[in-house]
Parts: sequence; structure tokens; C-alpha cells
Amino acid sequence: MLAILYLALIMIGAAILFLPVSVTKSITFSDALFTATSAVTVTGLAVVDTGSSFTLFGQIIILILIQLGGLGLMTFAALVLSVLGLPIGLRHHNILREDLNQTSIHLLVGLIKTILSVVLVCELIGGILLLTVFVPDFGWAKGIWFSVFHSVSAFNNAGFALMPDSLSRWATNPIINFTIPALLLIGGIGFSVISDLSIHRGWRHLSLHSKIMLTGTAILIVWSVTLFAALEWSNPETLGAFDNPWDKLQISWFQGLTTRTAGFNTVNIAAIHDSTALMFILMMVIGAGSTSTGGGIKVTTFIVLVLATIAFFKRHNQLRAFGRSIKLEEIMKVLALTMMSIFVIMSSIFLITISHDGDFLDLVFEVTSAFGTVGLSRGTTGELDTLGQIVIGVTMFIGRVGPLTLGFFLARRISPRISYPASQIYLG
Amino acid sequence: MLAILYLALIMIGAAILFLPVSVTKSITFSDALFTATSAVTVTGLAVVDTGSSFTLFGQIIILILIQLGGLGLMTFAALVLSVLGLPIGLRHHNILREDLNQTSIHLLVGLIKTILSVVLVCELIGGILLLTVFVPDFGWAKGIWFSVFHSVSAFNNAGFALMPDSLSRWATNPIINFTIPALLLIGGIGFSVISDLSIHRGWRHLSLHSKIMLTGTAILIVWSVTLFAALEWSNPETLGAFDNPWDKLQISWFQGLTTRTAGFNTVNIAAIHDSTALMFILMMVIGAGSTSTGGGIKVTTFIVLVLATIAFFKRHNQLRAFGRSIKLEEIMKVLALTMMSIFVIMSSIFLITISHDGDFLDLVFEVTSAFGTVGLSRGTTGELDTLGQIVIGVTMFIGRVGPLTLGFFLARRISPRISYPASQIYLG
Ligand SMILES: [K+]
Ligand SMILES: [K+]
Repeated sequence: MLAILYLALIMIGAAILFLPVSVTKSITFSDALFTATSAVTVTGLAVVDTGSSFTLFGQIIILILIQLGGLGLMTFAALVLSVLGLPIGLRHHNILREDLNQTSIHLLVGLIKTILSVVLVCELIGGILLLTVFVPDFGWAKGIWFSVFHSVSAFNNAGFALMPDSLSRWATNPIINFTIPALLLIGGIGFSVISDLSIHRGWRHLSLHSKIMLTGTAILIVWSVTLFAALEWSNPETLGAFDNPWDKLQISWFQGLTTRTAGFNTVNIAAIHDSTALMFILMMVIGAGSTSTGGGIKVTTFIVLVLATIAFFKRHNQLRAFGRSIKLEEIMKVLALTMMSIFVIMSSIFLITISHDGDFLDLVFEVTSAFGTVGLSRGTTGELDTLGQIVIGVTMFIGRVGPLTLGFFLARRISPRISYPASQIYLG
Repeated sequence: MLAILYLALIMIGAAILFLPVSVTKSITFSDALFTATSAVTVTGLAVVDTGSSFTLFGQIIILILIQLGGLGLMTFAALVLSVLGLPIGLRHHNILREDLNQTSIHLLVGLIKTILSVVLVCELIGGILLLTVFVPDFGWAKGIWFSVFHSVSAFNNAGFALMPDSLSRWATNPIINFTIPALLLIGGIGFSVISDLSIHRGWRHLSLHSKIMLTGTAILIVWSVTLFAALEWSNPETLGAFDNPWDKLQISWFQGLTTRTAGFNTVNIAAIHDSTALMFILMMVIGAGSTSTGGGIKVTTFIVLVLATIAFFKRHNQLRAFGRSIKLEEIMKVLALTMMSIFVIMSSIFLITISHDGDFLDLVFEVTSAFGTVGLSRGTTGELDTLGQIVIGVTMFIGRVGPLTLGFFLARRISPRISYPASQIYLG
């Protein structure tokens, strides 16, 4: 349902981007389709350079696709209906629930209002802060457009930038290093957490989900920033090019934050060490928060995987976090989600290797970047043939609508009629 | 407990292999240690060529290490005690259970007797069949030794061969293509299945474990043989070098069977396509059967992962196979095992990438080959520095004693005292 609406949005976007008015020089329809998919799924992988290939009109279209894709099309539609005072049927609410992963219909209307205000306020403040960087560099007209574009792109964790080397030019600019990460953090933590934070001020009153998201995100940030700094400190093509330790830390901070789902970069991603690339791959698979603009298996899923593994080895019979337990049935969901994700990633890599003979690490990097809707690239996407582009496009799409949606789509719902006697098998 | 005994066996083996009487030219202790680890864990990865670097005495030591490692040292010890008529205390039985993953102590003595007879009969028949190939090629003395060595190596899924290019010279020999796969299949299916088959003749009376193992193995064989043939059919460095389709099918059959855990090869593994290598990596992670001489997460674990994923998407509340159900608690074990395996494989790759800058696919291949105690190589093991060799050695060891053993070792057993109220988090 939701997937079909996303698909329609992609097709409309591709058709508009294919128009001569959108592009500075003619592009193929497959390039237009890839760009629209990348924008709607807020991934940011590109087969043509966004800044030079598209006219201002084309860039505005891309920005609209990002905003619609990031917020979730259905949230947006329901929002409009709600603002217009039209009644929203239960059917629409159910679609909304599927998109936002929110259980109670009652909480939904409040959540939508929070979403809109948070989005507008964040993008506005972000845009104003970015003005102080882009206006001096480009003048008023281009400066304002750059501020709007990058603010919206950052908040939606889209990773689209108007420069071919992303934000590398401002690698050591403190305003960029504060504003962009702040935007993508708020956009990536998930609206349910933001909503929870806006209602309950104290830590004690937050939901288990919010506590796990906030703690998990903090741990992952410390981990990825520290590891990036440690591994790249003296790599002459990345941090080694900067003498000032403060500059190195700023870049590590930016890159450690943007890797899980935003996809901006201030260093050349093709130049990082293999070990750093491997760490990035893990981060991209983990991704951001549920009900956020980010992708991946989600931070909570990862934390539950870790908790479940620890619980098993400690022979606990329940998962516990922050004085609450998590039902064992949730394990089934986590396991299914993880298996589907591994299946999608492995299949994509396999399909591309059949026709493409490039560097394997770069390929794995590109596929996980698409799956986590991250958009970081080591250059493989530009080299792929049409088949490879289609595979990457489908992977971005699955990454955005979620592997669970795909799984439910593939499985027909059959209720078990007989209860079978239990039996034991050896697994170790 | 078992791990310590394996460790002791490795150290004794390394010390003997380091003696001048074992080698044709002096090797480093780290090479001797790696070889002993590879033999005891029945992996077959090599840093020195087995056939030319070791004397007959050294090769006999390697073969003894393979046999002890393959059978499980404790099974062997208990066996000797039992044959000598000595009483086996409950303590020893518990260690045995850990190794064989057998729940009932009652069934254990019967199982051990079955093990010994199956091993001897299979290795004897295998050796006699191999004589018809090796004696004409090498004369009686060398021919008999080659037959014994390769029969034992194949039955224990060790993958050690006395030729630098494994069994490539006999790629199209029908006797090799029948005998070696037959030996490694019986050794890799797991003694519990063999024991079950020896008691219950009909399919209907077999245990759920045996049914899953036999069906799963059959599916994986058809899958890997077909895919290998399809992907490599016209690769000039592998199947493309043979004109006769029957030869191509023989080689596909051999390679499709040997990949999951045995580790012999009749084509150059470094020359296979990236897509084939990826398929091999998946097969090596899956591995063979529980209570077998093979490694990996095991076929049953893989099947339960797939069944659990399907059950979740079909919204079934239990796992079912062959008219039996599998308890949901087993999911915890499967999940923990899978997570530990991914953790071990990722950590190994990460540690090696820090110091080693080789081809990433080859490295992933090598690490999964070590984890699945497979022993197929694309050449990376020979290139690694001492740190890399240690990482591969540790990975082989964990692959053999099982990631679950490592997990229980790492976790201290703490019983939960309070039951926490259940709470919901979003995972999708
Ligand atoms: K992105
Ligand atoms: K092996």
C-alpha cells in the first residue's frame, strides 16, 4: 500500500526530472529514475552530479521529493487532510500506522502535529545558521538556495548536496560541523522519540523505546567517532591531510555522525582504509531510528539483537533494559527483520557481481549504503551498468519501505490449524 | 573444558611438527602452530605445503591430529576408557555431551560404538577405493600412504591434501569424484544422524533432526552444484577449460559438495568468479551438521533461521517441520549463535584489515573458510603476517569449538531475580 504510493511518487518524480526544463544537459530516463528513487528514499546515491546536471527547477523537484519521501508520503497526505478539516477514515489511519510504526491510533494525530512543527522549526533554524556560511561564499541568491537545500536534505537524512564532493569544502567549518549533524540527529532519532521528549521532560518518564534509542544512539556515536579518528588519524588522504588535531576531531565528529544514515561527507570516502570502510558498512546496516527519516535495520533492532544474545548466554529467560522487559515474541520480529536484511543485501551483491567485476569492498559498501538509505559512495554507483543501477535502486526502495514490508508482501497469511507435538533438534 | 583439551592437543602437535624429524626444511614455530591448529580443527588452511614441507613422520602426526580433532578428543578418550573396561564417571559424560551435543547420557555409549565402527569401515572402504587411483599413479608405497591420508582427511572433512593444488590433477577421475564426496558426506552429516539411520530404517521413524539434516543437506547440495555449474560453465580458468559437459558436471558435483566444510578443490579457487566466491562464502558459513566433523553455524541452524523468518511473516506462532513443532525458545539459541558467528567473522576481518591491505573478497573468503573449518583458500592465508595468521588460527579454533562455547565462556551465569513489567519498542 505505502510501497505503491512511494512507487507512484518515484515515477512522477522521474518523469518531471526527465523534462528538458529540469536538466542542464539531457540525461537518460534511467538516470532520471535513479535520481528520483534516490531522492524519495532519501538515500543520496547519484549517477549524475546534482549541482551541475539539474537546473534550479530540477533541484527544487529533487528537494520536494526528499521532503515528501522523508516525512513519509502518507503522513503528509493525512496531514493535509487533517489541516483541511476532512475526516480521516480508519483505513487511512492503518496505512499511517504501518508507516510510522505507531500502535495507538489515539496518539497519532498528536504525533502528526508534532512532526510538522518540528520539521518546520528545525529546517528554518538550520537554514538560518547555514546562511552565515553560504551567503558569504556564494552571494544572496545562491546562498539562500544552498541554505534551504542543505537544511532540508540534512534534516531528512537525504545526503544530497549541490557540490560534487559533498561538503568537503567546509570540512573544518564549525557552523557546518554543528548545524548539519544537529539536523540529521533530530531527523534520525525518530518522531516517536521527539514526541515523547516533548511530552515527558524527565528521563525517568520516557518510554523504553526512547531510552533505548537515546542510549543506543549515544553509544554508536561515541563508537564511530572514536574509531574513525583512531583508524584515519594519519591517513594522508583523509585526516592526515590536516595538521590541527582540532580539525581532525571536527571531521571525525562529522563523519562518525553522518555515516549511519545521512550520507554527507567531508573527506573522500574512496580514500578511507578498508578497516574504516568495514566499520562504516556495519554502521550503515544498523542505520537510524524507527519512525525517522533514516534507514537500516534500526538502532533498536540492533540493541535487541545484542541484548538477546547476551540474555541467552547468561541463561536469562527474558530481555531486560532500563528496568523493563521485552517480550520474547519480539525476538521473532528482530530475527525475521535481520534475516530479510541479510537476504536483501546478499542478493543485491550477488546480482551485481554476476555482471560487474569491480572491487568487492566498494561494491559491498555501495549496496549497504543503498540498503541503509545512506548515500555514501566509493564510486561504484557511477560505474554500474543499467542492471546494476536497477539493483541498487530496488535495494534503496526496500531499505526505505523496510524489509518487513517486503517479507509480509512475499508471505501469504495462513493460520496454522493443527498444533504439532514439540520436538528437539541440535543447533550448535 | 573441551576447548582447553583441544588447545593442549594443538600445542603438543605444534611442538612435534616443529621437530627436525617432522620437516624436510626448517619451518618457524608459528608455521608449526598454524599447521597443528589447522589439523586439530580439521580446517585445512595451510601456510606451508603439506606434501613437500613435512616428512612422512610429520604427515603421520598431521593425520593423527586430524583424526583426534575430527572425532572430538573427548569422544576418543572415553572410547578408549570404555574399550579398556574402565568406568566413565558422570563428569566425563558431561564433557562428552558438550562435544557431541547429545542430550541423553543413556544413548551416548551406543553412539560412541557406532562412531568407531562407522569411522573405521568408511575410512577402510574409502582407502581401498582410492588405492585404485593412487597406486597406478605413484606405485605401492606412496600409493598406499596417499590412499590412507586422503581417506582419513576426507572422512574428517579436513581438506588436507598432499598435492599443492589439492586434487586438481584428478578433477575428471570418476573414482575420486565418487569416493571423496561419499566420505565427506558421511562424515559431515553428523554422527547422530548416522546413529539414527542405523536404528530406524524407514524415513517415517527418523527423528526431526535427522529429517531436517537430510533434507537440508540435499537442498544445499542441489543448490550449490547447480549454481557452481551455471556461474562457472564458461569461465576459461575453471570449467571453461574442459570441453566435455560430463567433465564439467563432475567438477561441479565435487566442488558443490566439498565447499560447505570439506575444503578439497579440483579447480583453482582463486580463479572462480566473484559471484561464485560469494556463494561459496554463504555455504562455508552454513557448514555441515551438528555432531559431525564439519564446522559453520550448521545446516539445522540455517534451516531454523529460514523457518523462523517464514513463520514470522506468515504470522504463525510456532515453527513447524515434518509434522513436528520446534519450541520458540530454540529461536533464542539460533539468534545467539548467528549473532556470535557474525561477530566473530566481522571481528576477524576487521582485525586483519587493520594491518593487511589485500583484496577484500579474498580476505572475507579466507576468514569464513577458517570459521567454517573449510580450508578453501584464494591465497590470502599464505600472504598474511604473523598477526593475521594468529587471527585466522583463533577463528579456526572458535569455528571448531563452536561460537556458543565462546559465548558461554564470556558470559557469567547470573539468574534474574526480579520479573520486570513488559514494555513495547519499535523495531521495524
Ligand atoms: K541518506
Ligand atoms: K576442512
